[in-house]
Amino acid sequence: MCDVKRDEFLQLLPEIRDRIQDCDFVAIDTEFTGLCLSEACQPSLFDTPQERYRKLRQTVGSFIVCQVGVSVFKKDMKYNRFDVWSYNFHLFPQSFANLDVRFSCQASSFEFLCQHNFDFNKFVYEGVPYLDQEQEKLLRKHLDQTSWPASGGNQQDQVQLCCSTVSQWLSNGSGTELNLPAPKGPVRFLIHRALRTRFPEVWTYDTADSQIIVRKVSQEKRKEEEEKDDLADRALEYMLGFTHVLRTLTQARKPVVGHNMLMDLMLLYGKMYKPLPEKYAQFKRDLHQLFPCIYDTKHIAAELKKPLAEFGVLQSSVLQDLYDALSSHKGKFMVLHSPAIVPAAECDRYINESHPHEAGYDSYMAGYVFIRMAHLITMQGISKQQPVPPRFRRYLEVLRRFQDKVNVIRASIDHICLSGEDPVSRRPQWLYVTLTQSRAARTINSAQIAEQFSAYGSVDIQPLDANHFLVAAHSFYCAKDILRAYRSHKLIHVTYYNMWKHSRTVQALLWTSIGVSVLGIAWTFLGKNS
Amino acid sequence: MCDVKRDEFLQLLPEIRDRIQDCDFVAIDTEFTGLCLSEACQPSLFDTPQERYRKLRQTVGSFIVCQVGVSVFKKDMKYNRFDVWSYNFHLFPQSFANLDVRFSCQASSFEFLCQHNFDFNKFVYEGVPYLDQEQEKLLRKHLDQTSWPASGGNQQDQVQLCCSTVSQWLSNGSGTELNLPAPKGPVRFLIHRALRTRFPEVWTYDTADSQIIVRKVSQEKRKEEEEKDDLADRALEYMLGFTHVLRTLTQARKPVVGHNMLMDLMLLYGKMYKPLPEKYAQFKRDLHQLFPCIYDTKHIAAELKKPLAEFGVLQSSVLQDLYDALSSHKGKFMVLHSPAIVPAAECDRYINESHPHEAGYDSYMAGYVFIRMAHLITMQGISKQQPVPPRFRRYLEVLRRFQDKVNVIRASIDHICLSGEDPVSRRPQWLYVTLTQSRAARTINSAQIAEQFSAYGSVDIQPLDANHFLVAAHSFYCAKDILRAYRSHKLIHVTYYNMWKHSRTVQALLWTSIGVSVLGIAWTFLGKNS
Repeated sequence: MCDVKRDEFLQLLPEIRDRIQDCDFVAIDTEFTGLCLSEACQPSLFDTPQERYRKLRQTVGSFIVCQVGVSVFKKDMKYNRFDVWSYNFHLFPQSFANLDVRFSCQASSFEFLCQHNFDFNKFVYEGVPYLDQEQEKLLRKHLDQTSWPASGGNQQDQVQLCCSTVSQWLSNGSGTELNLPAPKGPVRFLIHRALRTRFPEVWTYDTADSQIIVRKVSQEKRKEEEEKDDLADRALEYMLGFTHVLRTLTQARKPVVGHNMLMDLMLLYGKMYKPLPEKYAQFKRDLHQLFPCIYDTKHIAAELKKPLAEFGVLQSSVLQDLYDALSSHKGKFMVLHSPAIVPAAECDRYINESHPHEAGYDSYMAGYVFIRMAHLITMQGISKQQPVPPRFRRYLEVLRRFQDKVNVIRASIDHICLSGEDPVSRRPQWLYVTLTQSRAARTINSAQIAEQFSAYGSVDIQPLDANHFLVAAHSFYCAKDILRAYRSHKLIHVTYYNMWKHSRTVQALLWTSIGVSVLGIAWTFLGKNS
Repeated sequence: MCDVKRDEFLQLLPEIRDRIQDCDFVAIDTEFTGLCLSEACQPSLFDTPQERYRKLRQTVGSFIVCQVGVSVFKKDMKYNRFDVWSYNFHLFPQSFANLDVRFSCQASSFEFLCQHNFDFNKFVYEGVPYLDQEQEKLLRKHLDQTSWPASGGNQQDQVQLCCSTVSQWLSNGSGTELNLPAPKGPVRFLIHRALRTRFPEVWTYDTADSQIIVRKVSQEKRKEEEEKDDLADRALEYMLGFTHVLRTLTQARKPVVGHNMLMDLMLLYGKMYKPLPEKYAQFKRDLHQLFPCIYDTKHIAAELKKPLAEFGVLQSSVLQDLYDALSSHKGKFMVLHSPAIVPAAECDRYINESHPHEAGYDSYMAGYVFIRMAHLITMQGISKQQPVPPRFRRYLEVLRRFQDKVNVIRASIDHICLSGEDPVSRRPQWLYVTLTQSRAARTINSAQIAEQFSAYGSVDIQPLDANHFLVAAHSFYCAKDILRAYRSHKLIHVTYYNMWKHSRTVQALLWTSIGVSVLGIAWTFLGKNS
C-alpha cells in the first residue's frame, strides 16, 4: 500500500518495521504546513550555519509535518535489482485528553501544496498521529490515572453520551449486552475507560466493526479482565503512531537519504524526538547519533556536477530534473551493470505517474537518484570487463566523502557537516556599496539596490546606514558582473568589502590599539629616559 | 447558490449586496481553526467581561475564520412569509505579493469540524480571500508600485516561467498573439503586471477560460491600454473578497442575528476590520458602531426560558435543539399568524437536510429561531381576533430589551451589553475551601477538588495556597449542593467566601487601617493631653 491511512497504520507497522530492518537504505521526505515563520526567518546569503539553524528552529517550532514519505530500498544481488517499498503517510497530531496541539500554517505553503494536489481532507481525517518524548511522558502520566478526564469539550461530550446510554440501559435492566457505536481512535479509548471506571458491574470490548460491546460481568470476571487490561498501553501505542517508524529508523542505523533534507531532519527531530536544542552544536551531535549515516542527494548532485555532466544527463540539482534525467533510457543504461529499480506492486503508481511533492514520491525519487548517481560514479573509469555489478556497500565507500553533509540553500555555506566541522564559505567576498552624496542617491533604498543587482544573479543586502550597504552575492560571476556594471555608476559605488577598511568595529579597535601602542611606546621611551 | 466558491464570488457579490440592502435582518455564523490558544485562555466562571475579552482577543489573534454563513431574511407581508437566502462561504487568506498570512490551528477544533463533515479541501482550494484595513493599506501601497515583486518563491516561479515563455516567443518572432495558461487569482494579476512591465511591445488580456492572451501592440495602442489599465483595482477588489460582504453589512445597518455570537463578532472584527483593540471598552464602542443592532438567540432563549416553556417547546438553549423544537409542527403552528420561513430555491438543501456546524446552515437556524421566538413572544396574550400578522418591526420592539446583549459562556456574567453597562453577576457567591491539617488532606490538589465538586454541577477552582481554594459554581443549586455535601467532611471544609474574612489583601488593608486608626487615636489623645 502506498498511502497509509490512520485506521490501517498499526496493522501495517510490523511490515514497515521488518522492511526497514532488512533494507540497504531508506529515503525520506516531508511536506509541512509552513516554510518560514516571519520576514526575520527568511534565508539569506549572509547566514552562517548557526544563524540558519536559529531561523529554521523558530520555523520548525511553529509548523508541523503534514506528510512523510518513507521509501525502503533493498538490493537483490541475484537480479541486480533494487526493490522499493514506498509509504506515503499523512500525519495529523490527533488530540487526546490533555494533549491538544496548536500548530501554525502559512498561506503560501498551503497554496504550494494545492499546486501539487495535496489532499487536506486526508491530512486531517486520515493523518496518523505522532508524539515527541515530552508528549509521550505527559500522556503516560495521564494514562496512569484511574480515570482519564477528557480535556476538550468535544471528546467529553461523546464520552458523556455513551455513559448516559449505558446508565439508562443498566437501570432498564434489559439484556446482558449492549452494542454502542464508537468512533475509532482516541475517543474510543476514553469511552472504554469511562465506562469501566463508572460502572463496576460491566466490562467493555471492541468489536471488529465500529462498536463497543458493554457486557454485564460477575465480580470474578471483572477482576480477571482488570488484570489483563492493556487499554493504557494500546492507547499509547495508537498515539505514538508515526513515531514508531522514526524510532525503528533510528534503531536500525541504516543509511538515510533525502534531497535538500535539512528542514526534513529538523522537523522529524523536533516533532517526533524532542524540542530542537538551542545550541546548533548540540543539534548536530544529537542528530548524528539518531542518524549516523546520512546522504543528501542535492549536495551530491551539486558536488558531482562536473563528472556527472560528462555523462551528459545533468544540468540541475532539482529533484524532479535529476530524476527525469537519470530515469531516462540514457540515464539508466549508459553505464555497465546499471541496477533495475523496481517499486513493489502496491506502489506501482510511482512508476507510471509523476507525483512531485507528494512525500512518498519525492522519497522514492531521492532514493532512485541516489542509486543512479552512486552507480555512475562507482563505475566511472571501471573497464567494461568488470564481471559483476557492485554491491550496495561499494556505493557507500565511493560516496563516503559526501556522508553526513546536508545541503543548505541561500546561505554563506552551501552545506553543513553533521559529523564534523562545517566547511568554510565558498561564496564570493561581500560587496560594499556606497551611495554618493547627491540628492538623487538619497532616495535609493536597499530594496531598490536588491532589485537592480538581482539582474546579475541572487543577492542579499544588509543596510549599514542610509548610505552604506553590504551585499552577499550567490556566485563569483554575479559579484564580478555587478562590480563591472557599476564601475562608473554616478550614484552607486561598489567595491569588494574590506574588513580593515570598511568595518567600523575593526576600525574602532584598530584606532584604539594604535592609540594604546603609541602610549606604550611613549611610556617605554619616557621610562627609559627617566 | 448555497456554497459560494472562490471563482464565482465576485460574480455573485452584486446579488448578495442587493439582498442585504433590501432585507429585514441578516443572521451570521462562523467556523474557525481554533477555539482556545492555550490553557491560560480557557474560559472560567471567575472571568469578568474584561478578562474574557482579554482571553478571546489572544485566541482570535492567532486563529482564523474558515467558514462564514450569511442568511438574509426578508418578510413578504402579502404571504406572511420570510424568504431566506443563505450563503455558505469558505474563507482562506490567499497570499499575494507581500501578504502571506500565518495562522494557527487547534487539533481538537479540526477534529470537531471533522465530526461535522467539514471539507478542508474546499477551505484551502476554494476559500474566498479577505483583508483587514491594515492588509488593505499594505497591498494598496504594493499595487501602487510599477512592478509587483512577488515575495513567495512559489508565485515568483510561476511568473518567471511565463516571462521566459514570452521572451522566447518574442525572440522567435512568430505570430502576433500568444495564449498562456494562467491560474485564476493572485498569480494571474502578478503575471499580467510582470509581462506588461517587462515587455513594452505587448499588452496582455484575459480570456473567458483560464488563459492570458499576450498580444503585440503598437506604441499608440499600448499607451491607450495603459491609460485605461485597472489591474491594480481589480487585484485589490479580488483580494478584499469577503470583506466586501462585511462592509455591505456594516453600511446597511440592518439587525444582525447570531447564536452565542461573541467569538463570531470578534473574529469578523479582528480579521476583516482591524486588530482587536487592547481595551474592552473600546471594542464595545467600535463594535456597536459597526453593528448598531445585534440579537443573540442564545441569550434570548436563556432569558425567555419561562415564557417559552409555557408553550412546551423549549428545554435547551442549544441552537439545534431550539431549531428542532421551533420547526416542529407544534412549534410552527401553536400561535396565530405564524409566518412561513422559506429558503430560496438555491438553498433548499437546508429544508430537507440537517447540516449542523456548517456556517451557512447555522446562520439559517439562528435566523429561523429568532423569528419563531420573536413571534411567540409578540403574540403572547394577544387575542385570537388579531386580524393581521405582525410586521417585522413589531418583533424588534418586543425584543428591544435583548438588543445588543451577547451571550457569554462560563463566566461571572452570562452576557455582555454592547450599547451600555454590562450586567452584574447572577452567579452564586464564591465558595471558600479549606483543607484540614491532616496528612490525608495534604495530597489533595485543585484538580481533585474540581473533579469531586463537578458531580454537583459546573465549577472552576482557583488555588490560593496549598490549603485554600476559591470555587466559582455555575448555579445556586450547585453551590448549595456542594455546601450540603461537605457539611461534615473530614478533610475538606467549605463555606461561602467572605471577602472581609478570607481575602488576605482586604485583611492586610483592614489591619493596616486599624493600626493607623489606633495610632491616630493615640496621637489625638496624646495631643490633647500634652
